[in-house]
Amino acid sequence: MSDFRIAFIGAGIMGRPMCLNLLAANFKLVVHSRTKSKAADVLKAGAVWADSPAAAAKNADVIITCVTDTPDVKKILLGESGVIDSARPGLICIDMSTISPFETQQMAKTLAQKGVVLIDAPVSGGQVGAEQAKLSIMAGGDKETVEKLKPVFEAMGKNITYCGTSGFGQITKLANQVMVIHTIMSLAEGLAFADSAGLDLNTTLAATSAGAAGSNSLKNLGPKVIAGDFAPAFMVDLQLKDLRLVLEYAEEINQPLPGVALVKELLSVLKAQGCGRDGTQALYKVIKQLGKK
Amino acid sequence: MSDFRIAFIGAGIMGRPMCLNLLAANFKLVVHSRTKSKAADVLKAGAVWADSPAAAAKNADVIITCVTDTPDVKKILLGESGVIDSARPGLICIDMSTISPFETQQMAKTLAQKGVVLIDAPVSGGQVGAEQAKLSIMAGGDKETVEKLKPVFEAMGKNITYCGTSGFGQITKLANQVMVIHTIMSLAEGLAFADSAGLDLNTTLAATSAGAAGSNSLKNLGPKVIAGDFAPAFMVDLQLKDLRLVLEYAEEINQPLPGVALVKELLSVLKAQGCGRDGTQALYKVIKQLGKK
Repeated sequence: MSDFRIAFIGAGIMGRPMCLNLLAANFKLVVHSRTKSKAADVLKAGAVWADSPAAAAKNADVIITCVTDTPDVKKILLGESGVIDSARPGLICIDMSTISPFETQQMAKTLAQKGVVLIDAPVSGGQVGAEQAKLSIMAGGDKETVEKLKPVFEAMGKNITYCGTSGFGQITKLANQVMVIHTIMSLAEGLAFADSAGLDLNTTLAATSAGAAGSNSLKNLGPKVIAGDFAPAFMVDLQLKDLRLVLEYAEEINQPLPGVALVKELLSVLKAQGCGRDGTQALYKVIKQLGKK
Repeated sequence: MSDFRIAFIGAGIMGRPMCLNLLAANFKLVVHSRTKSKAADVLKAGAVWADSPAAAAKNADVIITCVTDTPDVKKILLGESGVIDSARPGLICIDMSTISPFETQQMAKTLAQKGVVLIDAPVSGGQVGAEQAKLSIMAGGDKETVEKLKPVFEAMGKNITYCGTSGFGQITKLANQVMVIHTIMSLAEGLAFADSAGLDLNTTLAATSAGAAGSNSLKNLGPKVIAGDFAPAFMVDLQLKDLRLVLEYAEEINQPLPGVALVKELLSVLKAQGCGRDGTQALYKVIKQLGKK
């Protein structure tokens, strides 16, 4: 199936390693990025440059977008010199960004009028997962198309789940972010309480992380908090964007989420303090600050 | 070291299997419980009955208490016909209940005046952990005494951590409960959001539980929520008691925990609705109710 010609839009922290993995799996790759220099490695590895999303889409079978937010995807797919300009029936778009499920469904309808299929396939696993081709991929849209795309997904990820109709990949990703942020809160309040009480944090981690309190966040980020390492595995700014999407959609479906709302507000303290590019484990600092004289 | 003569006070859900494991490890055991019938299995397995905590303590080297709350422990150790009545210098008390760290420290001081050492050693792992002798044990108090007690702890648990001076076992347990309750919130809001959005919950669990969102609560309790099984692994009433202890101690040390405060209030909805004996995973029901018309 490596005869799919793929055009990839977005060569950022995630897109870059994903492109390299597609090339490593022998896919023919055209790449476009807002900032050309970001694609340098990918071009060196054999990809061909395109000057616009429309140019990238021209001879492609599959377009992949992996950018930051809803307006970015909208512009790439439907905007000026966008994919829709040169799209022909049968083209498949895969959006691997994390964006609004509702807007995803709207765009899928618009593209369908041109015979283009939109699959939403956001990922979890961060930069490391992208580099190691171990991303979790949550796919929504036409099931047969998702099946057909398996070799493409397998070049970039491991745990590939078909989640349902258009937008359901995005909704699953948002549910994932709800779950993640509470495990971040778990380590933030748990370790802040322990530290303020005078416990040794390494001992606390040893006593707790293997039992009922155990989580991947505690295991992976707990030692970073203890070491005072707030470099991003996943950035506060991006998590805030994802939680905004969560609360927007939660309102749409009438499902209040008081916990997410609280954690989002606490996380936004970091943004207000100029720490939006910290990793989400910096939520620990916010909780600790509450107890400072 | 199985020449320790042990007196065990409290033959409830946790105490009963802990007693059986001590007997299986060949410790001589005297048992006392508020309700004698609860100790029937333990007596059958070879333990000797005592009519009061004082009577139980009389010929014991080690007294273990495993009951519900601070006043229970206080009454057993320092009340009428309590341990202190017949205690002699050198006696070791191990309190394996989850109670107030502050009161623990006070009781340790009172007992020390009689030459009695109090070790706080609360546990995590629930009924199943108790039955399988796989409890996590968090010990605070005199380090040498904790060392000496190793064979006693190893008869009941696996992950035995020395957490520091008197009360530090309890504080570590409370930090553990902070971490646990946020992972319960993770599955409650994550799955409630997913369900209200129309996702298939088994698919959602498959897509999320192995990645960054993964936690022991999600793995162990997620399938129960999906099956509508709200039977207790750990009861709402007991979790509420533990979170009350957390917030009391957090106030003592000036460490606000807004997340715990919110989750405790949401959990208390279950108590108000007569579901205090549900398992903590019933928090899912509370979140779902928020979205009902």
